[in-house]
Amino acid sequence: MGLLSERSLKLELSTSRIEALTDGVFAIAMTLLVLNFDITEPKGDITHEKLVDALHSLWPYFSHYVQSFIILAVFWTKHHQQFHFIRRSDRTLLWINLGFLLFVCLIPFSTSVVGDYGGLRISALLFELNMLLAGSFFWFHWRYATHEHRLVDKELKPEIIRAYSHFMLVVPAFSIAAIALSIFHPRWGTNIYFLIPFAVYFLRR
Amino acid sequence: MGLLSERSLKLELSTSRIEALTDGVFAIAMTLLVLNFDITEPKGDITHEKLVDALHSLWPYFSHYVQSFIILAVFWTKHHQQFHFIRRSDRTLLWINLGFLLFVCLIPFSTSVVGDYGGLRISALLFELNMLLAGSFFWFHWRYATHEHRLVDKELKPEIIRAYSHFMLVVPAFSIAAIALSIFHPRWGTNIYFLIPFAVYFLRR
Amino acid sequence: MGLLSERSLKLELSTSRIEALTDGVFAIAMTLLVLNFDITEPKGDITHEKLVDALHSLWPYFSHYVQSFIILAVFWTKHHQQFHFIRRSDRTLLWINLGFLLFVCLIPFSTSVVGDYGGLRISALLFELNMLLAGSFFWFHWRYATHEHRLVDKELKPEIIRAYSHFMLVVPAFSIAAIALSIFHPRWGTNIYFLIPFAVYFLRR
Amino acid sequence: MGLLSERSLKLELSTSRIEALTDGVFAIAMTLLVLNFDITEPKGDITHEKLVDALHSLWPYFSHYVQSFIILAVFWTKHHQQFHFIRRSDRTLLWINLGFLLFVCLIPFSTSVVGDYGGLRISALLFELNMLLAGSFFWFHWRYATHEHRLVDKELKPEIIRAYSHFMLVVPAFSIAAIALSIFHPRWGTNIYFLIPFAVYFLRR
Repeated sequence: MGLLSERSLKLELSTSRIEALTDGVFAIAMTLLVLNFDITEPKGDITHEKLVDALHSLWPYFSHYVQSFIILAVFWTKHHQQFHFIRRSDRTLLWINLGFLLFVCLIPFSTSVVGDYGGLRISALLFELNMLLAGSFFWFHWRYATHEHRLVDKELKPEIIRAYSHFMLVVPAFSIAAIALSIFHPRWGTNIYFLIPFAVYFLRR
Repeated sequence: MGLLSERSLKLELSTSRIEALTDGVFAIAMTLLVLNFDITEPKGDITHEKLVDALHSLWPYFSHYVQSFIILAVFWTKHHQQFHFIRRSDRTLLWINLGFLLFVCLIPFSTSVVGDYGGLRISALLFELNMLLAGSFFWFHWRYATHEHRLVDKELKPEIIRAYSHFMLVVPAFSIAAIALSIFHPRWGTNIYFLIPFAVYFLRR
Repeated sequence: MGLLSERSLKLELSTSRIEALTDGVFAIAMTLLVLNFDITEPKGDITHEKLVDALHSLWPYFSHYVQSFIILAVFWTKHHQQFHFIRRSDRTLLWINLGFLLFVCLIPFSTSVVGDYGGLRISALLFELNMLLAGSFFWFHWRYATHEHRLVDKELKPEIIRAYSHFMLVVPAFSIAAIALSIFHPRWGTNIYFLIPFAVYFLRR
Repeated sequence: MGLLSERSLKLELSTSRIEALTDGVFAIAMTLLVLNFDITEPKGDITHEKLVDALHSLWPYFSHYVQSFIILAVFWTKHHQQFHFIRRSDRTLLWINLGFLLFVCLIPFSTSVVGDYGGLRISALLFELNMLLAGSFFWFHWRYATHEHRLVDKELKPEIIRAYSHFMLVVPAFSIAAIALSIFHPRWGTNIYFLIPFAVYFLRR
């Protein structure tokens, strides 16, 4: 079966289905984030004031929803950009991508934990660890694909590869900072992620 | 990294993955709307009359389901039409689209609130605010793409651009009217949206 | 804006996004069917016998799951086949398709009702009415597209159009039969759908 | 209608929508696996220790999540590979694929059962039977498509067909072994699946 293993690298040339699966997972993860919004008030006799209170108490969920949505959106746009350059795929890249998706699928859960118990250190750490692992797989995805131009165009300039490597490090770097901060101030730690758009903007200049 | 920022605009030419992500989000949002339908009667011993009553009490949910489905369907068909003209994408358009999706993902939630507590002003306002924000992002999406023919064909006629701008204003305009009405009559406010198909028909003539 | 309405028919030529949205809705509806499977036994101390009983009591759910899955699968394969012949789309076809999807999205709900309260006439009727409406929209979809070869190839043979019209009538016809039967025997009514594959096989000969 | 049945084989040439539906089902099944993670602690006053305990008790769910994710990922990558070789589709292949998806959709459910009641034999057997059935349909999918080069290239080498048949037997073979083991040791049985990557690696050499 040596013949099979020789050919197998050529088999998985097309990247379109990887992109389709990834788009599906992101679309669902984004939508499931909202399932955390839950009003436990009884449906029947509820006063206007009570519902305002109930909606008001959803505020931390909304804040975490926006936060997770932004992080998912950043991942998704970067995935889009990586596959702009990645010409073909092999089995290893496929599995790195699946490892990335394993942790992307967990984001709605860790968002719900940090929404329910945001004041506790362990939930902040769980959320940040999730982001760190997803981000690290994603950075590794780019490193593997571009190492010695393995799966990208031969002409792709090294400075572009390097610049994108820096982009891919934003989420892991912020996660490490957030973990360090969360040990002392759980609520501050997770808020760090709101600064990502500024970091990306700064890096692009 | 100036070189990167120069190239980055050209990078995101393809619109196919934006469309794929958007189709995914709409498919899920449409399907999740139905998760609000919930019969709390015990499964075992239930009489025929009781189940008829329980199903009857789902009527407002069904009405809001159809309403939200129509709004989602209008958004989706307009998205389809926008991308018929939009030839390429840049980073700003991508993020406007993601902002739009952020509020589209919230529609199942605000539909459930208006289904559970439809008689209360705050829930009607929440629903209408959601629609206003989604619709405004979507109008801005078209404005950004067509301003000075930024991302559309040079030959696209100004009257088409203007006519579509009017279409894109339908949902925001109805939402403002609904918000004004809801301050006095919460139940009437949300029903305004059923008039959208007529407005679209009228505009097209 | 007469100009716009003239052009608008030509605008919506591509059918690929309709297919993408439809595939998404079907994939989610098929998966959500399983959310009805629910074991209410406590997680901690449960004996082997009790869990066997609990799983055993899921049997009607499984049966309805298979039934709904088959109906969804029939719809999906027929959708696939319709769009094999449909060359282009217009606004009316788009909205007929969306009306079809409105009732497809309801299938997981009506499946759960018939699973929870299968012995009661009203739940059987709800399920069958849902299928009747989805099936009727779908039949109308084919009629509209093929009437005077509106959106199909000019060369498409009339006998193929007619034969497919018959296929598209299978679900509505079975639904009417099921509704009639359910008035007397709720449990028998829904089981009629298991005969669909035989009907399709018979029609194809 | 003999004419129709003659033509019908040629009709379903395109495999792209089968792949789209399958990608959608896999994306949703992977994401729904996480809905099993559920913390029942009250949201208000919870101590740090209690939440740590609650998260700790989620460990078996996480372990089963990873396990099911890996199995889904193996199925998905193999599906990707099958359709690299399968050139066209017919009605039978379509329905074998749908039978495969019927059991793939059940994986989130059987994962939740084995997570909730992992120590009991019946839940382990349910999980393994699910995998056995999904895997068997999938093996049959390949057999049907490649038998006498029915739906693949005439030039596809027999040793490749045979080698892939062996790959497709990995999940069914492991499932039979797991079922046999579970009769004596329920917890050990399901853990066998973690060895799949090694088996795949070994077969590829």
